[in-house]
Amino acid sequence: MIKLYDSKLSGNAWKIRLMLNFLQIPYVRETLNLAEGKHKEDAFKKINPFARIPAVELADGRFLNESNAILLYFAEGTSLLPVDPVLRCKINAWLFFEQADLLRFLAYPRFYTMINQREKHQDIISHYMELGKPALTHVDKCLEKNTWIAGESLSVADFSLYPYISMAEEGGYVLNEWPSIQRWLKDFKDIPGYENIVNA
Amino acid sequence: MIKLYDSKLSGNAWKIRLMLNFLQIPYVRETLNLAEGKHKEDAFKKINPFARIPAVELADGRFLNESNAILLYFAEGTSLLPVDPVLRCKINAWLFFEQADLLRFLAYPRFYTMINQREKHQDIISHYMELGKPALTHVDKCLEKNTWIAGESLSVADFSLYPYISMAEEGGYVLNEWPSIQRWLKDFKDIPGYENIVNA
Repeated sequence: MIKLYDSKLSGNAWKIRLMLNFLQIPYVRETLNLAEGKHKEDAFKKINPFARIPAVELADGRFLNESNAILLYFAEGTSLLPVDPVLRCKINAWLFFEQADLLRFLAYPRFYTMINQREKHQDIISHYMELGKPALTHVDKCLEKNTWIAGESLSVADFSLYPYISMAEEGGYVLNEWPSIQRWLKDFKDIPGYENIVNA
Repeated sequence: MIKLYDSKLSGNAWKIRLMLNFLQIPYVRETLNLAEGKHKEDAFKKINPFARIPAVELADGRFLNESNAILLYFAEGTSLLPVDPVLRCKINAWLFFEQADLLRFLAYPRFYTMINQREKHQDIISHYMELGKPALTHVDKCLEKNTWIAGESLSVADFSLYPYISMAEEGGYVLNEWPSIQRWLKDFKDIPGYENIVNA
């Protein structure tokens, strides 16, 4: 049985649960208390040298790290990742865009809000939101033309982008500005195995 | 013949040239003047909807976007990308780490220095360097144990991480702090097809 190391409220861990559910791959969860620094302890660094969640332990004891790399691992050989190398490159491009241009700018305004440090980090939040807004506009324009992120088929890119975009309002973004994103968020909730983020 | 759309001084474009040289894949270059906003023009958005370089035009007229996605496209089937899915996941993890935890924090202090706006963006530079330093320490610890980023073999991960780390000092980092990175930078310069960044 696969073991998923996650934490409550983590969008990166939510990505993995959504995909494992969709693919009907059974797994058990081990939830780390990040507030206590469990992810920075030596025992966990052996599981993930990057010292963060999510991580996956396979049945043979080997480990997988980094949310989008884990998504690609499980998507291989399924309808979520095409075999054609140019289409695959297009999907990988979205996964890298998610890490470079969306994740931090959406996740950190939300994180600082959650830990009541919004005022303390006001300048950083403004800077991040200045960068996050054009990235969301780019996603919205794409979803104006396509049903899903990378075209007419649901792909690994949708699983990568969904969690942090769906929670962007918790960080202060107003998704009314991006109607195609709102349509896509509703569509994604209808996929098989959809579940909400884990709160505890 | 493959066409590479690049710009002078771009580390992301340098990644692609280094790999194409290493794999002995011939290509022609078209260099965009980013200061004139050539990458934001509609003609280029048809080549790359993300409106940035690098992009690649294949011989059949199809396009590839995003530096690390392009690296993966060309690495497929070569010694730079193992077939084993767990090893491949490990390498992908480094590529995502490069986008999420290194690229911006290394590239922007350098960029603001190049355009003489270091003082204007002092707070952002400090914030980015606070984030870039532990990321470099993580890379250094890994290179203490391994010859190359993902183990004992040169891989696509080395091509992804090399350009911005090698230019970090132009942004104010002092690489003396990370001796294993310095050793690796020297080793990388000895790979077949190595060339310097394009300055013009």
